This record gives sequence, C-alpha cells and structure tokens, in this order.
Amino acid sequence: MNKEKNNNFYKTLENGTITSVPGFFAGSTSCGLKNSGKHDICIIYTLETSVCSGVFTTNKFQAAPVILDRQKIQENCGIRAIVVNSGIANACTGKTGMENTVKTAKIASDIMGIKEHEVLVSSTGVIGKQLPMEKIENGIKKSYAALDPEGGSSAAEAILTTDLIKKEIAVKIDLGEGKEIIVGGIAKGSGMIEPNMATMLAFIGTDAKISKSLLDKALIDANQVSFNSISVDGCQSTNDMVIVMANGDSGIVIDEEKSDDHQKFVAGLIFVMKYLAKKIVMDGEGATKFIEIKVSGASDELQAKKSALKIANSNLFKTAIFGQDLNWGRINAALGASGCEMDPDMVDISFGGEMIVKNGIGLAIKKDKGKKLLSKKEIKIAIDLKYGKGEWTVWTSDLSFDYIKINALYHS
Amino acid sequence: MNKEKNNNFYKTLENGTITSVPGFFAGSTSCGLKNSGKHDICIIYTLETSVCSGVFTTNKFQAAPVILDRQKIQENCGIRAIVVNSGIANACTGKTGMENTVKTAKIASDIMGIKEHEVLVSSTGVIGKQLPMEKIENGIKKSYAALDPEGGSSAAEAILTTDLIKKEIAVKIDLGEGKEIIVGGIAKGSGMIEPNMATMLAFIGTDAKISKSLLDKALIDANQVSFNSISVDGCQSTNDMVIVMANGDSGIVIDEEKSDDHQKFVAGLIFVMKYLAKKIVMDGEGATKFIEIKVSGASDELQAKKSALKIANSNLFKTAIFGQDLNWGRINAALGASGCEMDPDMVDISFGGEMIVKNGIGLAIKKDKGKKLLSKKEIKIAIDLKYGKGEWTVWTSDLSFDYIKINALYHS
Repeated sequence: MNKEKNNNFYKTLENGTITSVPGFFAGSTSCGLKNSGKHDICIIYTLETSVCSGVFTTNKFQAAPVILDRQKIQENCGIRAIVVNSGIANACTGKTGMENTVKTAKIASDIMGIKEHEVLVSSTGVIGKQLPMEKIENGIKKSYAALDPEGGSSAAEAILTTDLIKKEIAVKIDLGEGKEIIVGGIAKGSGMIEPNMATMLAFIGTDAKISKSLLDKALIDANQVSFNSISVDGCQSTNDMVIVMANGDSGIVIDEEKSDDHQKFVAGLIFVMKYLAKKIVMDGEGATKFIEIKVSGASDELQAKKSALKIANSNLFKTAIFGQDLNWGRINAALGASGCEMDPDMVDISFGGEMIVKNGIGLAIKKDKGKKLLSKKEIKIAIDLKYGKGEWTVWTSDLSFDYIKINALYHS
Repeated sequence: MNKEKNNNFYKTLENGTITSVPGFFAGSTSCGLKNSGKHDICIIYTLETSVCSGVFTTNKFQAAPVILDRQKIQENCGIRAIVVNSGIANACTGKTGMENTVKTAKIASDIMGIKEHEVLVSSTGVIGKQLPMEKIENGIKKSYAALDPEGGSSAAEAILTTDLIKKEIAVKIDLGEGKEIIVGGIAKGSGMIEPNMATMLAFIGTDAKISKSLLDKALIDANQVSFNSISVDGCQSTNDMVIVMANGDSGIVIDEEKSDDHQKFVAGLIFVMKYLAKKIVMDGEGATKFIEIKVSGASDELQAKKSALKIANSNLFKTAIFGQDLNWGRINAALGASGCEMDPDMVDISFGGEMIVKNGIGLAIKKDKGKKLLSKKEIKIAIDLKYGKGEWTVWTSDLSFDYIKINALYHS
C-alpha cells in the first residue's frame, strides 16, 4: 500500500499527522477509562474557527456523541475542538448518556475559553456504560494542558481501543504558483468494521479555506471510496464518525467546484482517507492478510461495490485466505449470492495478476502455485464480470483464530 | 429441541428416517470420492412414481444437478429415485459438469430399469471438480444392490461432508378415523449455511397422496420457517436443495387446501423440516452453542426476519456467545444496522426469559448472572421491538476457534 503512486502534485510528509496541519494542536492523557493505564482521552484543537463536515454511522442505535455532533455540524457555526475518549462508547446509555455528552462539551468549552457549540465530542469503547464525568473532566483539563502543535501522534494513540497500531498521515498539496495546503488526519478502528460506517473514528484537518458545501461534498465523495469501501467483519458500529475541519490557516481559498485547485484538494483528501482506511484493515482484529478485491465489468458501480463487499464479508472466503487455500469456489459462491447482475458463465477471477477462473470455470492451477500466490501478506483479487462498465475496489482482512480470541475474550 | 411439544395428532417415530415411509428404499456405498473411505454415494428409491416438489438455492452460480432437478420437477412427470453423491459438488464445472449430471441420471435409470426423467441427481462437496464417472457408475451399481427398506440411515450417513452427526427423523400423522400417513426425511449441512437456501440437502418422503400444486405450496411454506430460518455463517451455497416426494403408498388423499387433513399434513411436514434444520445448526461447523433468536413487535414478518438474521450473522455477536459474554451491545449494533423499522428507545431484549435490555438501555446484570445465562448449550434470545405485530424466529450457532480451523484447513 505504501507503493501506491502519489500523484506528483501531492506528497506524503514524514511523520505526518493531524498536527502537521498549521494551526492544529493536540494533547492527550490517561483519565482512568482504560484499565491498562494507556492514554484514553484527547483534545484536537485549532486556533481558528473551522468549517466542519462530518459523516456518521447509519446504525439506528446512535451513540450520544454521534447525535450531538451531527446536529452541531449541520448548524454550521464553526468548530474549534474535538474531545475524544476511548474505553467507553456512550452508546445505548439513554438520557443520562446524552446529558453526559453535552456536559463534556460544556466542561471543555469552559476550560478552553471557547463557545460550547464549537466543541465536538467523540467516544469509542464498550456499549452501555455511562461516562464517569469526574474522570472525564480531569482528563479534559490535563489534555488541554498538554495541547501541543506536535501532539497529533499522542492523540492518534489515545483514541485506540483494540487497535495494535496508530493510524496517522499528512500530505502537502502543491496547487502551483507557490500555493500549498496540507491535509492530515488520524483514525482508529480494527473490529466492528463495515461500511456505512465502520466502527471507526477519523479526524482530519486541513488549512485550506473552503466553504461548508464544498467540504461536505468532498467528504462524502472521499468517504465512498475509502472508509465506506473497507470491511473487517461486516459489523457496523453505533459510534462511527469521520470529521474534517478546515481552519483556513493557509489563506488559500478553494471556492470553485471542479477547478484545478478543488480537484487537487479532493485528490489529497481521498489519498489521506484511503490511507487511513487501509491502515484500519491492516490492523483488522486478528488479520494476517490485507486483501484487495476489485470487481470490474459490473452493470454499474453500485453492483460492483455490492458484490465486492459480499465477498469481503464471506467468512468462508476469509478463512480460506487465512488458510492460504486458493478456494475460488467460495468467491463464486459469495458472488452468486450477492444479487449482483451477472452471467455466471462469463466471470473471470485472478489472484495477483494470475488468472484462476476463466468464464466461470476454474483453470488447472497447481497446488504449490496456489499456495505461493496466497503466501504473500497482501493479496490482490480481480474479478471481471464482463457484463458492463461498473467497477469498485474494497479492502478487507482474513478471518483468523485471533479474531475469535479477541472478540470472544473481550468482555463487556 | 427434543422437548419441542408434539401436537397430539403426530408423533415422532423411534429411529425414524426417510425409509420409515412405506414404499421408500435406500442404499449407499463408498465409490472413492471421499479420501476417508466413508460412504459417499446413495440412492433413495420409491416403488411408486412420486409427485415431487423442490426448492433450490437462489445463488446465481448453480451446480449442474440444481439446474437439472429444477427442470425435471417443473415438468412434473413423476420421480422414482434420487442419486446423491458427497465429496464433489459438481458446481462451476461448465458443460462437462452438466453432461456428467445428465449421464448420472441415465446410468442410474438404466441400472434400475426406470425412466431417465424419473431420476434426480444431487451433489455436495468441493466446487470446481469434475465427477469421476467410472466411480459414479460403480457407486450407483453398488447402491442399487444395497437398496433396503431400512436403508434410510445409511443414506443419511452417505450424504454428509463436514457434518459430524446424521440428521434424520420421521413422524406418523394421525388424520383420525384410522387414517395415518408418515413423513420422514434426511438432511446434511453444517457450513455455508444461510437461507435461500443454506448449503444443505434435504430429502423428504411421504406416503400421502397429494397433488403437485398442494405439495409445492406446503414445501414453500414449510421451508420459510425451517431451512430458510437458519444460518451458520451467512454463506450461501451453489448446491442446496430440499426435495419432497409423495408416493401415495398410504392411499390417503389430501386434496383440499385448509382441510383438517391438509393442515395436519403441513404441520407434520413443518415439524420434520424444522427438526432437520435445527439439527444442521446444532452441527454447525465448530458450534458450541445452539442459539434461538426470536424478534417480535416488528412492523411485519419480513422486518422481523431481516433483523433476526442480521443478528444471527453478526460475527461479533457470535463470538460473544462463544465467549459466554452477555454483550447485548452487539445485539443492539446488529439490530440497528439491519435496516429494520424500529425505535431504538423501545427495544427490549431478554436472554432465557431474563430481561437484559429495557427500552434500549441495559439493565444492571451481575457478571456471574450473565455468565450463568450463557453457560447453557441452548441460548434463547427474545427481542421485542414494540413497534408492530410481526414476529419471526431463527436459529444459529456461535463462532468458535473450530469454525476457523475447519474452514481454514479444509482445502479445495
């Protein structure tokens, strides 16, 4: 994935993170939500009031912060800070849960001396538990004291739950004529990962100056090909959100849709979001493989996406990949069950560029060759339905003993 | 499940199987398709030409025998025998695969001295491999020689793949005035189990005399509440079929829909099919728990079924049950992601009759009590949406280390 070709107008920054974006600060601490003693609360803060867009879980059980943030972002009064806690999801917590979310924003705004409506709240962790508000208040105070223009990585660490690795990146986008903007972000997530959204949080900053409507549209488009194109276990969470804040610090205005500057900004945002999304899959609970599934030749994009996700979510497919078995029959079975428009006798399937199925029928592939194709850590599967022009790519992980271990032993 | 109350007009026969039905014979042998040397081919045979109904996988990749049998059953020319092999699915095998299926029926009809169109063919096993026709021919000869009016259990054994237990049952239905009919059946399946259909085969016989249209309708109705209400892993197969043969041996005519006799026959058929379906779940790959999920109070039956199946197919829910953790948050998350019409603040959830969630919020249940509720082998979960009058029950298994073991080590 690191080999993904950068277009020449943007470049990945070394040790890039959300605070690589001018005007962004972050600070974190441990306030006692995680038994491990690891950092479990952080603040992401920007000096200038930011234009802010967000996409949220479509789950009907929505955690309190999801409900509150969606409302604040719709009101479009500008955002200065996000308080994120890990360990407790504040989902299915009723009236008290909502009061605690509101109170979190109030406490944070008082401490930071900004307006209450300028503070977003985000939570991830166990469902059904109330936030211990004294600990939260204490955590906000310490996180505020720790705010640092290089604090992005500590925030990237504090938002993790069952994750094994931090997920952060920043890119510098060259708009020509000496104009440069930066997009940087952090994310968390490794299980309950399924589009619309996954159990994941992502916070992205940019110093571009952009209107709410253009930022909304850019986020929705970028989200489709990144976080809405990954799946670890087909389970959708109550807490997911992707937030983008544009603080305008660069003074560079992006105000015309489809302009060169606009297209470059969107390309950079997509790059950052795809990177973070893929990192979530790589860190998928118990994952031993990173799998790319590209379906082409579908009647349209939606059909391609539907069939690619059906394969990505097939336990039989995922266990075969874990077992390094070239079991293309399980791909066919998932594809045929997806409801996608197709002619079974036309389907081609290849693994790592090697044709395995031609016109719906398996080619004679030697066992050791199949094994070799599957011994790699990254597996690229291409499926051509030869039916239309729609194509879509999704990323997923395999299903291993460790997924069961992590999720059977994780106690609520 | 054995405690399921029999209505007083039907009773389960001791050691009941498909050949408990008068006029049915079965015979099996090993023809070399399974490396283990276990029986892998069988014939189910009836003296009288039977009226026959079938339901088949909706997967777009359909195994050759599925295509052939559907056609024969539609033509309604009467059926005398079914040849079933295990070990090779004859799916995704193209023109040769279809030729081999046709040839199998031809060979069998020649050997048995019946008409080719009177023979159905069924296969289960690895996808993509061709049937070795010499072995098949040899197997048919030996199975025919072994035909026995008490051979049902040997056929129930021969159709198994990764299954650990045989699945067979028969009931005697008392229609009053000394009129009695029998319904008996066998089934296989333990993985790739998901409705519409599951990877399963079921063959059911009855000595009732019934028209094709009434039998078709009875099968479709019974299938909805049995095989289409189970899920082991959400994966749908290319080979599934449920076949019912009515040979009329009893001379008892069931010719009027909604008549008392008809209703009793359907009730008996449902009992047999539910029993076999539940046995498949109990034998689910790696299953340590048998889980019943009943959703009530949905806006209609379809909504109830959709949400119950979404929970049944949630890997996070299934691993929590395996880990014996009362993680109701994962039920809420799956329910909320199902798209089912509901008000999250109204949902009640109980485990084994014990209320766990009231109006969408978790009640304080002590850890050891939760553990106790989940320590049983059979777990009954009831979810009341309090939204409408639709209800549906599905059955599923948990997701354990052994599921991964079975499916990662099973090589194509």
